Amino acid sequence: MFLKNVWYVAGPSSDFGEDVVSRRICDRPVAFYRKSDGSIAALHDRCPHRFVPLSMGQREDDSLRCGYHGLRFGPDGVCDDKPAGDQENPAKICTQHFAVEERYGYAWIWMGEAENAKPAMIPDFSFITSGEFKCEAGYLKVQGHHELITDNLLDLSHVNYLHPQISGGSHWSEWDNRVEVDGNTVWSRLSRPNQKPGAFQKMLWGSDSERGDGRGDVRWDAPSVLYANTAITEVGADIETSGFHTPSAHFLTPETATSTHYFWVTGRNMAKDDEKVSAMMEKGVGEVFETQDGPMVEAEQEAMGNSTDFLAHKPLILKADAAGIRARRILRKLIRDEQETEGSTAVQEVVE
Amino acid sequence: MFLKNVWYVAGPSSDFGEDVVSRRICDRPVAFYRKSDGSIAALHDRCPHRFVPLSMGQREDDSLRCGYHGLRFGPDGVCDDKPAGDQENPAKICTQHFAVEERYGYAWIWMGEAENAKPAMIPDFSFITSGEFKCEAGYLKVQGHHELITDNLLDLSHVNYLHPQISGGSHWSEWDNRVEVDGNTVWSRLSRPNQKPGAFQKMLWGSDSERGDGRGDVRWDAPSVLYANTAITEVGADIETSGFHTPSAHFLTPETATSTHYFWVTGRNMAKDDEKVSAMMEKGVGEVFETQDGPMVEAEQEAMGNSTDFLAHKPLILKADAAGIRARRILRKLIRDEQETEGSTAVQEVVE
Amino acid sequence: MFLKNVWYVAGPSSDFGEDVVSRRICDRPVAFYRKSDGSIAALHDRCPHRFVPLSMGQREDDSLRCGYHGLRFGPDGVCDDKPAGDQENPAKICTQHFAVEERYGYAWIWMGEAENAKPAMIPDFSFITSGEFKCEAGYLKVQGHHELITDNLLDLSHVNYLHPQISGGSHWSEWDNRVEVDGNTVWSRLSRPNQKPGAFQKMLWGSDSERGDGRGDVRWDAPSVLYANTAITEVGADIETSGFHTPSAHFLTPETATSTHYFWVTGRNMAKDDEKVSAMMEKGVGEVFETQDGPMVEAEQEAMGNSTDFLAHKPLILKADAAGIRARRILRKLIRDEQETEGSTAVQEVVE
Repeated sequence: MFLKNVWYVAGPSSDFGEDVVSRRICDRPVAFYRKSDGSIAALHDRCPHRFVPLSMGQREDDSLRCGYHGLRFGPDGVCDDKPAGDQENPAKICTQHFAVEERYGYAWIWMGEAENAKPAMIPDFSFITSGEFKCEAGYLKVQGHHELITDNLLDLSHVNYLHPQISGGSHWSEWDNRVEVDGNTVWSRLSRPNQKPGAFQKMLWGSDSERGDGRGDVRWDAPSVLYANTAITEVGADIETSGFHTPSAHFLTPETATSTHYFWVTGRNMAKDDEKVSAMMEKGVGEVFETQDGPMVEAEQEAMGNSTDFLAHKPLILKADAAGIRARRILRKLIRDEQETEGSTAVQEVVE
Repeated sequence: MFLKNVWYVAGPSSDFGEDVVSRRICDRPVAFYRKSDGSIAALHDRCPHRFVPLSMGQREDDSLRCGYHGLRFGPDGVCDDKPAGDQENPAKICTQHFAVEERYGYAWIWMGEAENAKPAMIPDFSFITSGEFKCEAGYLKVQGHHELITDNLLDLSHVNYLHPQISGGSHWSEWDNRVEVDGNTVWSRLSRPNQKPGAFQKMLWGSDSERGDGRGDVRWDAPSVLYANTAITEVGADIETSGFHTPSAHFLTPETATSTHYFWVTGRNMAKDDEKVSAMMEKGVGEVFETQDGPMVEAEQEAMGNSTDFLAHKPLILKADAAGIRARRILRKLIRDEQETEGSTAVQEVVE
Repeated sequence: MFLKNVWYVAGPSSDFGEDVVSRRICDRPVAFYRKSDGSIAALHDRCPHRFVPLSMGQREDDSLRCGYHGLRFGPDGVCDDKPAGDQENPAKICTQHFAVEERYGYAWIWMGEAENAKPAMIPDFSFITSGEFKCEAGYLKVQGHHELITDNLLDLSHVNYLHPQISGGSHWSEWDNRVEVDGNTVWSRLSRPNQKPGAFQKMLWGSDSERGDGRGDVRWDAPSVLYANTAITEVGADIETSGFHTPSAHFLTPETATSTHYFWVTGRNMAKDDEKVSAMMEKGVGEVFETQDGPMVEAEQEAMGNSTDFLAHKPLILKADAAGIRARRILRKLIRDEQETEGSTAVQEVVE
């Protein structure tokens, strides 16, 4: 059960060009290609005639021709050429098309009806393109339900245990921990004045201070699009405008119910021109996800079998789960509301 | 759901000799071996005692001895030797046996009760053994329901798109297209007078004519046994008795509900002694099936999941699907009739 | 459906040391480790918080710390340390722990509530450690339900067919064959006076006699723990106290419903110091299981699909199946009784 009327990251803009790329999102195959005007077309990658992927066919101008029996579809999903001699009106033959927006270096796809797409709903990730931060990016596939990764990111208490090499000297429970809900957005905010920088911060902060004021914020938006920022600044300074910041983006796009495309970006405002640091961060962050978080989430999914109903397994709830539970509830409500709306629409159609 | 009272091709005669061959047909494992009189025995490859394949045991004369506890079965499926000292009457211990007919160089198996087998129901493929044609043959396994391949063969409109290298200069829609139903046999007949030969025909026809009368016929019999013939002759000549003909056989035998044994034969009445042409045809036809039709059908099956109920997926129906739909309806009816007959038999048995 | 209140072999004692070993038993992952007092701890290998295996975490003294969010569990399954600052009382956080007994060189695990474990229920395998026999041991994984292997061992009529290389000159039906049920223990007893020794016995018996009195006993205890002994002695001598004996143990521990850990031990009271004989037996017995019994049982399971309900497949029942059927009935009854007891307990709890 996926939320449809929301934006999912389909991939970095650079993934999409003239060649057709097929990528499964919310368990639907989608064919992406860049049109002659430079924008990205996205079609349900399935011919309505024999269900084969349109991406197995050929691109013709801004259209896709099915490689089996030759039906051709425009970027609006409407058939614009069909085998001559057939009785069908091509304009009545369709495959679903999706709205795509490019922002912050990524292509975002709206999985509901394209005409309902609301670009204003794309959450703010301007740190990626603002120039203020040097960013590294990566991708991994996780064999687990996307919310299990959301849980991981909204509960940083795991850093002490799963990532001892990057955790600071202090235990997360010594930090002030606040959960804020703002509409459908959830914030998990950690802060601690006058604490020792972690090993990684020490290296790049660029300050000789033995202590600083620390911050660790994570923001969630439906369905599983997260922003995080870890920061340290001089004791008493304004952490909003000073210090060492490492904002990051975590775009979790369900491939299927139990597998997730994980696109990540991590930025820094120190040592921005140091290529060694860039290489270290790209490799280091990728390794943390691939060898620590990924396997742990996959073990969790495996223990749940193919189930995606985490709560049905009656997990023990700890204090640190507060943000994850809020996010889970909001997503459940959004999906339920969406289904009810579709349900009532269906009823109206019957009445007409 | 498979039709039982019908002939399936088990394989070329040369596949079956003294050694026991196990092949899954209609999702039943069958053990084949050639008896001392040269005919082929076919037993349900499953001992009724512990269900293990009889083909894991030993052949003894014309019987098969189970390799686990020694029950032995004759080619009629009746136990003809059992562990001494047991109380059971061996003649009451049975595994199903199947009727096998060899014709046109292939072994045909009747999947219903052997005593009901009707050899006269084997469709005509005399082109293979008539001597009139030089034939090449091959095999591939397709991970798709057999009717999806039937659809492929009964709708040659795909040739223009899936096999551009062998399609002629004209589009299939320019051909006269007729579907004929004769009892339980379906014919899809394409014809076009005064047209340009295709590239392949040009090479082998043996005529310098720039144009000829063309023909493309496909015949279907249940469950999925197809004959096809593509021909070209001089304009105005009798195409039945002259010109270049390339008859072919397509024996589609379900292995399971979603995988199919595809045995094919392709013949030609020109350049019959040219070994280079023979090699080219064997390689070329095999490659077309393995790299073009096979992957497309497998993509179609994959898009349908494990489902075999094609119509439940609400496909768009085009004019070129007419023959495939007829074949599908006939097979459905034959299966339904067979099940009703079995049902009424069962009732009678209860009455007795 | 597994019997819980019974002993299963988890593995040879030497498998378990300081490092945590995770092994799936009755479809539950279990984490084993040897405590500082030398005894073996066994915990359900699943943290109640996020379900990940505790074996992915770290051992701390006699406890296991979860590698995800740091909950720590003692060998009694009770949480003994948790992330500081949490509101939960750690003593209320538990994972199941299991009783483990070491006997005869093997670790036995009781899959029911640890406090109900009855060490006296471990069947007698003192031949392994008595010193009277030189023993070899091995392990294989069989992709089949454990009762299919029980059937194999309780019906030695298969030896003539599946292991012709080790069967004697006589057919099993020439032996006296008795099935005895003693409480929940089943014995299958074969005996034959004045018969020729088999090839293997001839080599090691150490007697020049052309004939001897033979014995072949197999004992079953729930769920699938078997003892076997094949013996030969001089005609008329007391076979209990003389002759060549090859006792063996067959510990069949369900991994899942359709896969089984098979731990085996085979002993001999002749040529005990001959290392060549030891090597031959270790290799020979292992090969018999891996290349003959294992594949046959796996073929049987495959023919049954994923089903574990053997009788639902309506097997032919032969005289030699008598012992296997008794064992199957007893296990069914034990499981049913256990479920009814659990059911009535549940009712009482409701009444309270």
